[in-house]
Amino acid sequence: MDGIEKLLAMEAIRQTKARYFYGVDKRDWVLFASVFTGDVEMIVPEQAGHPQQVVRGRDNVIKLVSDAMAPVTTMHFGHTPIIEFTSATSASVIWAMEDHLWKNPDFPDAIPCNYAHGCGHYLETYKLLDGEWLISHIELTRLRMDMF
Amino acid sequence: MDGIEKLLAMEAIRQTKARYFYGVDKRDWVLFASVFTGDVEMIVPEQAGHPQQVVRGRDNVIKLVSDAMAPVTTMHFGHTPIIEFTSATSASVIWAMEDHLWKNPDFPDAIPCNYAHGCGHYLETYKLLDGEWLISHIELTRLRMDMF
Amino acid sequence: MDGIEKLLAMEAIRQTKARYFYGVDKRDWVLFASVFTGDVEMIVPEQAGHPQQVVRGRDNVIKLVSDAMAPVTTMHFGHTPIIEFTSATSASVIWAMEDHLWKNPDFPDAIPCNYAHGCGHYLETYKLLDGEWLISHIELTRLRMDMF
Repeated sequence: MDGIEKLLAMEAIRQTKARYFYGVDKRDWVLFASVFTGDVEMIVPEQAGHPQQVVRGRDNVIKLVSDAMAPVTTMHFGHTPIIEFTSATSASVIWAMEDHLWKNPDFPDAIPCNYAHGCGHYLETYKLLDGEWLISHIELTRLRMDMF
Repeated sequence: MDGIEKLLAMEAIRQTKARYFYGVDKRDWVLFASVFTGDVEMIVPEQAGHPQQVVRGRDNVIKLVSDAMAPVTTMHFGHTPIIEFTSATSASVIWAMEDHLWKNPDFPDAIPCNYAHGCGHYLETYKLLDGEWLISHIELTRLRMDMF
Repeated sequence: MDGIEKLLAMEAIRQTKARYFYGVDKRDWVLFASVFTGDVEMIVPEQAGHPQQVVRGRDNVIKLVSDAMAPVTTMHFGHTPIIEFTSATSASVIWAMEDHLWKNPDFPDAIPCNYAHGCGHYLETYKLLDGEWLISHIELTRLRMDMF
């Protein structure tokens, strides 16, 4: 890849992750689903009273995330990605991240707190498929999670 | 627009919004004014004890924002914009956002709290005018606002 | 510099700062060191019980930062950089920033609080050296620092 091809791919990766965040926080599951490959793998760490989870396949990822989001209002942020191309069709990406979760009073048992604030990193792989850079692997790692 | 033209425009849009944030938080109203079209429309939601406000025209926007910022110290952040071009001279942009407002003790009645923390999205339109991508429409929507 | 040269340089600057953040928060001092020129100057404001510090030289910067990070868990975020080229090999950059510091219970005297939350801006200079855009000057300025 030459410089311009990399710039175009990096921008495409940023736009994919931007849709990821908007999709999850606005509960737009069609938009959210559009950022993953069909065989995506997601790894969510033990956190907020839930054990580590590993799920494979876009439909399973959507179910996992949409179920987890049902009892909370959330805001997820991603920052300053380190983007490294491992081939012309794949990239390793690390995003610094922060999330805020506020429990919906209708779901008192959803999480063991009223408000959770987390920080960490997403470790991701993107693949170029049919002209789109999509997330094929996403692992969330935590530096800190506070529950209030 | 070809790929490179879009990259250049996306970068210009990012730089415009970067100046927006630095201008508002540093109270540099000349810099802040430079990011808007003359006929900009701003929509601020009901929040922190204030009703929804809709203002039109750059001078009115500067007055609204500078008045609102006078009694507080603030930090505004914008993240992972979704940028979609609607023509060669206009773009729809959604920024995830977070803001922190700390009340100045000299203005005890300014907001009904000492500290406010908000999350949401800016829904914006940018126009290309005389070689610059400027904000012509900006609506702040909230997912959450907490007052302490 | 033409438009594409600027885009490539801006992206390189973003990647450098992305490695800065990942390096400091993951305590990867080899990665962290790789983002600075040998003669870098760092200015840290008076904060969290420590006086202002000015250090010069990459080794001294690494020692200052790694010592400061030893007794805390941290998350640093950088946002919406304003990037202005001052020559074909130098750029002035302002990053909005936020950091979270949680004191390690093993170091009760490290900072005068259990948790500190700061907001401000990094004022930086980047230089192009041997094909890499590196930080040659970095000054942290604060809009707010809260200690809990």
